[in-house]
Amino acid sequence: MSSTPTIRRIALSTGGGDAPGLNAVIRAATIAARARGWDVVGIRDGFNGLMFPERYIDGGLIRLDRTTVRGITHTGGTIIGTTNRGNPMRFPVPQADGSYRDEDRTDELIARFRMHDIDALVTIGGDGSLTLADHLHRKGLWVVGVPKTIDNDLDKTEATFGFDTAVAFATECIDRLNSTAASHGRIMVVEVMGRYAGWIALNAGVASAADVVLIPEIPYDINKVAQKIRERQSAGRLFSIVVVAEGAKPVDGNVTVRGKSVGQAERLGGIGEKVAHELEEITGKETRVVVLGHLLRGGSPTAFDRLVGLRFGAAAIRALEEGQRGVMVSLTPPTVSYVPLEAACSRMKTVPIDSDTMLTARDMGMSFGD
Amino acid sequence: MSSTPTIRRIALSTGGGDAPGLNAVIRAATIAARARGWDVVGIRDGFNGLMFPERYIDGGLIRLDRTTVRGITHTGGTIIGTTNRGNPMRFPVPQADGSYRDEDRTDELIARFRMHDIDALVTIGGDGSLTLADHLHRKGLWVVGVPKTIDNDLDKTEATFGFDTAVAFATECIDRLNSTAASHGRIMVVEVMGRYAGWIALNAGVASAADVVLIPEIPYDINKVAQKIRERQSAGRLFSIVVVAEGAKPVDGNVTVRGKSVGQAERLGGIGEKVAHELEEITGKETRVVVLGHLLRGGSPTAFDRLVGLRFGAAAIRALEEGQRGVMVSLTPPTVSYVPLEAACSRMKTVPIDSDTMLTARDMGMSFGD
Amino acid sequence: MSSTPTIRRIALSTGGGDAPGLNAVIRAATIAARARGWDVVGIRDGFNGLMFPERYIDGGLIRLDRTTVRGITHTGGTIIGTTNRGNPMRFPVPQADGSYRDEDRTDELIARFRMHDIDALVTIGGDGSLTLADHLHRKGLWVVGVPKTIDNDLDKTEATFGFDTAVAFATECIDRLNSTAASHGRIMVVEVMGRYAGWIALNAGVASAADVVLIPEIPYDINKVAQKIRERQSAGRLFSIVVVAEGAKPVDGNVTVRGKSVGQAERLGGIGEKVAHELEEITGKETRVVVLGHLLRGGSPTAFDRLVGLRFGAAAIRALEEGQRGVMVSLTPPTVSYVPLEAACSRMKTVPIDSDTMLTARDMGMSFGD
Amino acid sequence: MSSTPTIRRIALSTGGGDAPGLNAVIRAATIAARARGWDVVGIRDGFNGLMFPERYIDGGLIRLDRTTVRGITHTGGTIIGTTNRGNPMRFPVPQADGSYRDEDRTDELIARFRMHDIDALVTIGGDGSLTLADHLHRKGLWVVGVPKTIDNDLDKTEATFGFDTAVAFATECIDRLNSTAASHGRIMVVEVMGRYAGWIALNAGVASAADVVLIPEIPYDINKVAQKIRERQSAGRLFSIVVVAEGAKPVDGNVTVRGKSVGQAERLGGIGEKVAHELEEITGKETRVVVLGHLLRGGSPTAFDRLVGLRFGAAAIRALEEGQRGVMVSLTPPTVSYVPLEAACSRMKTVPIDSDTMLTARDMGMSFGD
Repeated sequence: MSSTPTIRRIALSTGGGDAPGLNAVIRAATIAARARGWDVVGIRDGFNGLMFPERYIDGGLIRLDRTTVRGITHTGGTIIGTTNRGNPMRFPVPQADGSYRDEDRTDELIARFRMHDIDALVTIGGDGSLTLADHLHRKGLWVVGVPKTIDNDLDKTEATFGFDTAVAFATECIDRLNSTAASHGRIMVVEVMGRYAGWIALNAGVASAADVVLIPEIPYDINKVAQKIRERQSAGRLFSIVVVAEGAKPVDGNVTVRGKSVGQAERLGGIGEKVAHELEEITGKETRVVVLGHLLRGGSPTAFDRLVGLRFGAAAIRALEEGQRGVMVSLTPPTVSYVPLEAACSRMKTVPIDSDTMLTARDMGMSFGD
Repeated sequence: MSSTPTIRRIALSTGGGDAPGLNAVIRAATIAARARGWDVVGIRDGFNGLMFPERYIDGGLIRLDRTTVRGITHTGGTIIGTTNRGNPMRFPVPQADGSYRDEDRTDELIARFRMHDIDALVTIGGDGSLTLADHLHRKGLWVVGVPKTIDNDLDKTEATFGFDTAVAFATECIDRLNSTAASHGRIMVVEVMGRYAGWIALNAGVASAADVVLIPEIPYDINKVAQKIRERQSAGRLFSIVVVAEGAKPVDGNVTVRGKSVGQAERLGGIGEKVAHELEEITGKETRVVVLGHLLRGGSPTAFDRLVGLRFGAAAIRALEEGQRGVMVSLTPPTVSYVPLEAACSRMKTVPIDSDTMLTARDMGMSFGD
Repeated sequence: MSSTPTIRRIALSTGGGDAPGLNAVIRAATIAARARGWDVVGIRDGFNGLMFPERYIDGGLIRLDRTTVRGITHTGGTIIGTTNRGNPMRFPVPQADGSYRDEDRTDELIARFRMHDIDALVTIGGDGSLTLADHLHRKGLWVVGVPKTIDNDLDKTEATFGFDTAVAFATECIDRLNSTAASHGRIMVVEVMGRYAGWIALNAGVASAADVVLIPEIPYDINKVAQKIRERQSAGRLFSIVVVAEGAKPVDGNVTVRGKSVGQAERLGGIGEKVAHELEEITGKETRVVVLGHLLRGGSPTAFDRLVGLRFGAAAIRALEEGQRGVMVSLTPPTVSYVPLEAACSRMKTVPIDSDTMLTARDMGMSFGD
Repeated sequence: MSSTPTIRRIALSTGGGDAPGLNAVIRAATIAARARGWDVVGIRDGFNGLMFPERYIDGGLIRLDRTTVRGITHTGGTIIGTTNRGNPMRFPVPQADGSYRDEDRTDELIARFRMHDIDALVTIGGDGSLTLADHLHRKGLWVVGVPKTIDNDLDKTEATFGFDTAVAFATECIDRLNSTAASHGRIMVVEVMGRYAGWIALNAGVASAADVVLIPEIPYDINKVAQKIRERQSAGRLFSIVVVAEGAKPVDGNVTVRGKSVGQAERLGGIGEKVAHELEEITGKETRVVVLGHLLRGGSPTAFDRLVGLRFGAAAIRALEEGQRGVMVSLTPPTVSYVPLEAACSRMKTVPIDSDTMLTARDMGMSFGD
C-alpha cells in the first residue's frame, strides 16, 4: 500500500436511469472523501458534464461538499443528473456522407479527467456504466464502481439500492388496486419494471398476494392464466390481480398488441395491455390495466435503500483509500466487500425458478402462466 | 314527526365506481342502525343483489352487523360490492327483433324492497345513483342518499369522502415523478381522473408544485404549454411536470391521438399520451407519460375521508330516525346537513376559474395552457 | 384604494410551535410578493432576528426569493425558524434589584421595521402571535396575519394547515398500536396534543375506531372508562384503545400522577400515564402508554395542508395588494376570506359536544368517560 | 426419509412480543400445509390456548384454513394472539406456604399436543420461545422454529421479519422530528427499542442522518455527546438529533434518572429521559424526548417483511414435509436454510463495532458518545 498515490481530488458520476438511493451514495462518498481532505466534484449527466462543458452554465462540474449534500439522503433522483445517452465508448460521430458512426471517445474522456486534476472516479451505474468503468480502468483511469439497478438484475451483489423502494411502492400500488378490483369483481393487470428479470414482479406479487405473476424467466400461456382466473371465479373469488413484468413473454414468443408488432406494442402500452386485452376476450370479465413505470423510479428511498446507498458510498471511498482499483462495491450480507469490475458485468442475475421465494409463491397457489 | 313509521329493517347499497371511505359509511350506518334496534342488509353490487338474487350464492343480500363491519373503516373498496352497470331506470331488455330497448324496472325494484320487508334505503352513490334515488323516492320508497364522487364534482356538498385520498395519492405520485424528471431533465406528463371537473388535477398540481395543469374547465393551447416549458428551460429548469385531467380539452376542440379520433384515443392512453406526444414534438425534449387512473380509486382512505365517511353514515341513520325522506346528506362545514335529492343532482360542481386556489396557482406561475 | 401606499419590501415571520405547512405559506407568500416586484425578507425565530441581530451571523434577516423557497412546499418545519419565547409585548427586562419585569418593547420592534425599510409584515402564528399582530397593527404597523394552530383551536377560520397532518399521523399511529394491543389483549393509552381543545383526539379517535376518547371539553370519570373496557371484555374484545388529549381532566378536577401534583405530573409523562396507571389498577389488565407529542408537529404536510398553506400565503399577499390592514386570512369553505385580527383572537374554538362528529362517535359506541 | 411419519395435523403458535410479519408467516404456513392436505390449528396466546382451554370460549385452538388467513399478509399483530407470560418451562406454581415455585410443565404440554392429535408444531418466537422449542424437541415433540425478533438480535439468521418495519418507521419518525428540531433549534432525543443490541438505533440513525446514536454495545460518555452538540452549534447547526437504544448504558455503568435507581428510571421514561435531562443541564439547550416504544411493534409490515414472513412460513412446512426436526428456519441470502434449534439460541447477535455500517456512521461524523 506504500505505492498508493496520494489523492487530492475525486469525481462522482451517475449513469443510466435514476434509482432511489443515488443521493445517499453521493452524500456518503462526498462526506467520507472530504473527511480525508479530498476535493470532490460531481460530473453532470453521466459524463456529459466533462465531455461537453460548453452546454453547462456551471461548466459541467459541481463542487461537492458537506453543505451541497445536506439533507439529500431521503430524496429521490440524483443531484448531479444522469442520462441514458452518450456512452463515450460508442459515441455517434457525424460522417462526411451524412451518416453517423459510433466512435470510442474514452481517450478524450480520460484526458479531461487529467485536465481537471481528478485523481480517481467513483461511478454509480448499471450494467452499461460498469462495463464502461472497466474499460476506463483498463485504460489507466483509477475507478471504483457502485452498482445501481432498480430491477435487481446485477450479479455479484446480493442487492443494491432502489430495488427495495420499487418493490415497496409496487406492493402499495397493488394493495390499492386490490380493493377496487374486489369491489367491482374485475381483473386488474399491473405492469411493473423488469425487462430481463422478474424480481420486482415476483417480490411485489408475493408480498401483495397477487393471483398471477408473469416474469421474463417463465414464458406464459395466456390460456393457463385465464384458467387460473376461472378457478378463482368458481371458488367465489370474482376478481383477480395479475402482475406483469415489462419483459414477460408468451410461450409462442410473439408479442403483438391488437395485431401490431412488438415495437408498436410498446408504444401502445406494452405487455400489460396485451395481457389485459387477451384476458378480457378469453374470460369475458371486465379488465383494467395500470402501468406503474416511472412511479417505481422516483420517490424517497426506503430506510433500507438509504442505508445501502450510504454504506456503498462510504465503502467506495475506503476502497480508494486502500488503493483498490477497478473494483465494484458489493453487498455480501452482513458486510460490504469488493469484486473486480470485469466479474460484475459478466452475467445478469435472473430469478432462479426453484428459489425458495418461487416455492413459496407456488405453495400459495400463485400462477406463473406455465 | 309523530307520523314517522317505525323502522325495522333498512338496506344499504353502493353504486358507481368505488371510492375510499365507502366502507366507513357502511360501518357507521350499520352500527348506528343496529344501536336503534334495526336490522341492516347490504345489497350486493348496486341493486343487482336485489334484482338478480339467482346470481348470488348468498341470495344477493348480506346481513350486516357489528361483527360484519369490524375493522373496515380503513379499508378501500366496498364490502357489499358495486357496479357501473344495470341502472334499473334504463334497463336493457331484449326485444323480439333481437335489439335491446331500455326499460324502467324501478317498480319491480321497489316491489322487491317490500318483499324483503325493507322499510328504508340508504344509497351511496354519485350523480347517476342519486338521480335514481330521487326517482325511487318519488315512487314512494323511503330513501336517504349519501354523496360519493372521487372527482369532487357533486354540487350541494362542500366535499365528500374519496377525493382527499385521491388528491393525497396523486400528490405523492407527482412528488415521486418530480425527482426522476429532474434527474433526467425530462418532461413528465401525469394523467389523473376528472372527466368533467379538474379538482384532482388542480389540487394535486398546486400541492406538488407542478408547472402546468390542464383541466376541463380551461381549454388549453398546446403551444402555450410548450412556451411555459421553454421559459423554464431558459431559466435553467430543465424539467417540467404537466398534470392533465382526463377530461382536459384543447382549444380547437378536437381530441385526436396519433391521427385517431377520440374514442380510439381513449383506448390508446387518452389525453395524457396526446399531450406528451405533442410536447415531445414541439419542444424536442424527452417526454414520459404516467396514467394514475385506478390507483386513485383504491387504497386506504385518509383520516379525513374516514371521518367524512363515518359522519355521513351516522347522519344518514339520524335522518331516517327523524323521518326525513328524499334527502341527501351534505357536508356544510363545520357540520353535516341535509338537502333534497332533487337539488343535489341539478348541476355539476366545476372549478371556478377565479377561485382563490386558481389565483394561488397563477401567482405561483403555474400555466393552464391558456 | 387610491390611498394604498406602494409596497417595496415586506417581511415574513413565524411564531410559536411549528406546524406542517408553514413552509408552504412562506413559499407562496414569497413567490406571490416577488411576482408583484416586492422584496421579501424572513425574520429569524419569531421577531428575534429583528430584535437581536447581533445573535445571528446573517444579521437575523434572510432574503427570500424564488430560489430560496424552491422545493420547500412538502417539507416540515419553517426555513426561517420559530420560537415560543421572547414576546416583545412582555419582554423580561432585568431591574436594578436583580429581579425581572416584563416590558412592552413593541415600539422598538416597530422602529426596527422602519429602519429596515419594511413596509408591511405577514406574520404566521397562533393565538399569542395574532394578539401581538393586532397590537402592532394598532400601533401603526401594516400587518396581515395567517392563522397557525396544530390543535385547531383558533376561532374565525374553519381550518388551518398542520391540523390535518397531525390527525393523519395520529390516526396512523393508533392503527399501529391497535394491532399490537389486540395481539396481547392489552389496554393501550395514546396521548395526543390538545391542551384546551380535543379536536386531534376526537378526529383521530373516531377515524381509527378507538374505544375511549378523553378530551378537555368533557371531564372524565376513570371508573366509567374502566366500565367501558370491562364491557368490551365481556363481549370478547380483550383489548382497548384509549386516546387522551393532553388537556383532558378528571371530573374531580385534580390531576395527580402517582401522588404528585400536576406540574410534576407533566414531567412524569402527563395525563396519559395517569390514565394508564389508574386503568391498570382498576381493571387489572396490562396497560401501555404512548405519548405522540412532537411526532405530530413534524413531518411532511398532507396534500390538504400544503394546499391550505399555499392558499393562505398567496391570500396574504393579495390582502396587502388590496390595501387591507389588521386582518387575518381565514378559511371559509370553499373560499378564503379576511377577518379583523381583533375578532380572530377573541375566543377559542373547542369541540361542540353536540356536533355531528360527537353524535357519530356516540353512535359508534365510543366512550368519553362521562 | 422413508421413515418420516405421515402428518395429518399441525399446530402454529406465536410467543413473545408481536412483530410485523407474524401474520404473513401464519398465512403462508397455513396455506402451504393445507395444500399438502394437513389440518392446521392455531394455539391462542403462546401455549395458553393449549394449557388453559377453559379460559377460552373457543377452547383455545383456532382452526386455520384458506378463509381464516385471507387478507392478513399486510396486517400487523398476530391473529392467534401472543403473550410474554406463562413459559411452560418455568411455570409459577403456588406452594403450601403461599409462595410460588417455578415448575417445568412441558410434559403436560406435550401430552396435550398428543391429546389433540397434533403431529407437529411450528412455533414462531424469539430467544425464549426457541429455547423452549428446543426443549420440547428434545422431549420428543416434532418442532420447527421460525425466528422472531424486532431487535434483530437473533444469531444464525441474517435477518427476520419485523426489524425492517421497525427501522423504516423509526426512520420516518426521526425525519419528522428533524424538521421540528431544526425550526426550534432544539435537541431532540429519540428512544427506540433495542435492549441488548443497537441495530434499530444504528440503522435508523444512519438512515435518518442523526447526529448521535447511543447503543448497548458502546457505553457512552454524556460529556462527549454534549461535546458533539457544541461542535455542531459552533458550525451554525443549532439543533441535534440523538437516537438512544433502550439498552444504552453510560460508561460509569449507573443508570439513574433524577436521582432514582434504574428500576424507577424505567417507570419514569427510561434512558431517553435520562439522556435528555443531562444534555439539557450540560448544554443549556432546550431538549425534548420522544419514546417510540410500541409504535415500532405495530403496523403493517413492509414489503420486505411480508416477503420474509411468507418465505419463512412456507419453508417451515417444507421442513416438516422433508422430515426435519428440531430446526429453525434461517435467512441466508439469497436463500432460506435450516439450522439446529440449539445452535440458534446459543448466542445473541450484537452490532460489530467495526462493521461497515459503523465505519459509514463514523465517516459521516456520527458520534457514539465514546
